[in-house]
Amino acid sequence: MYRSFEEKINDLKNELLKMASAVELSLHNAIDALKKRDDELARKVIEEDALIDEFETRIDNACIELLALQTPVASDLRLITSAMKINNDLERMADHAVNIAQKTLELNREKPLKPLIDIPRMAELAQAMVKNAIDAFLHRDSELALSVCKSDDDVDDLNTQIIRELMTYIAGDPTAVSRALGLIMISKNIERIADLATNIAEEVVFIVEGRTIKHLLGKKADKTRARSE
Amino acid sequence: MYRSFEEKINDLKNELLKMASAVELSLHNAIDALKKRDDELARKVIEEDALIDEFETRIDNACIELLALQTPVASDLRLITSAMKINNDLERMADHAVNIAQKTLELNREKPLKPLIDIPRMAELAQAMVKNAIDAFLHRDSELALSVCKSDDDVDDLNTQIIRELMTYIAGDPTAVSRALGLIMISKNIERIADLATNIAEEVVFIVEGRTIKHLLGKKADKTRARSE
Repeated sequence: MYRSFEEKINDLKNELLKMASAVELSLHNAIDALKKRDDELARKVIEEDALIDEFETRIDNACIELLALQTPVASDLRLITSAMKINNDLERMADHAVNIAQKTLELNREKPLKPLIDIPRMAELAQAMVKNAIDAFLHRDSELALSVCKSDDDVDDLNTQIIRELMTYIAGDPTAVSRALGLIMISKNIERIADLATNIAEEVVFIVEGRTIKHLLGKKADKTRARSE
Repeated sequence: MYRSFEEKINDLKNELLKMASAVELSLHNAIDALKKRDDELARKVIEEDALIDEFETRIDNACIELLALQTPVASDLRLITSAMKINNDLERMADHAVNIAQKTLELNREKPLKPLIDIPRMAELAQAMVKNAIDAFLHRDSELALSVCKSDDDVDDLNTQIIRELMTYIAGDPTAVSRALGLIMISKNIERIADLATNIAEEVVFIVEGRTIKHLLGKKADKTRARSE
């Protein structure tokens, strides 16, 4: 069936939206598996990553095809190259969800450490950032994109606090070191997902306003991130 | 001065090469600052990241301009879209070098933990991977690219071993927890740089052979990575 350039652009946006939903679900399930100590759900996250990889290959090919078939006008060109970057960011987020699921499987082999502190809340924030970043992209909403960038600071603060609490915990009970480190790594993976959502939001501001805020906001985020590690 | 399409493609390759050298140097200096407890060198890494950010913006714009100015043939199109991804990967590597430098500044405020185990060796491996990945890209050398993918397993193994040793260390001396965690985070950042070099190598195989190995090799790397966290 013949599809016009505009229809193909819409197809591309729809695919990105579906992929983003799959990534959100993957993160949600990984954290649920952690909370409920549910091996089966953790394994599901790991297995279903293949579907997200397929999304990525398909979207990448669609972008290259759109670039090859015609010389797009400037705004479409920017949209397509941004879609390629966002695609890449989403796939990396899914890899972090897989890391969380794998770490969860390890933690499920040991006795529970303690309540999960603010990890579930941090994951909810990160999940909302992914959703809002994609919505901002689809609706060219730079206000919403900027709000995603701001949320990243909250996630960084939670990460710092979680790591601090777990370090205190280890100092009090050295036998807990591997379990606490497992949770620290999970916290770091959530923080990376939030960073990747922020990348997407920055890309949206670039598309909509034609200015690069990445290395302005980025600097601050980097510093926060490094501090929080 | 008028520059032909081919000259502009060569300019693009040269810029990527220069950027990669800057990233290698940044990683080298960050590890040197860690080894020598050298605050000044660590601060230099952090400050000079701005130059790498400028590279990224310039290369991204050059790619978009090349895509806009003419409809490139398939092989050039693939080269340009790959250059955009590689550019992004290099910039992220530099952010990890900055993370290492910032962590080093924190560690320099505390008394030294112990010899740095295999962290310097791991960093050397990662540095060589960055160099080889870019050389593979510039010379369309898929053999060299595949060797980079293989080196990633060595880096993952070193990372696992380093984390294990530091965990044992914490268990024996709980007051060392923040210093040991600092080194674990540095190890993780080096491992991420090696992953990003592997992304580039996978991209090279894609350009040269027109096949995606990413999610074949990627799977294995992910599992190794997750295990090693």
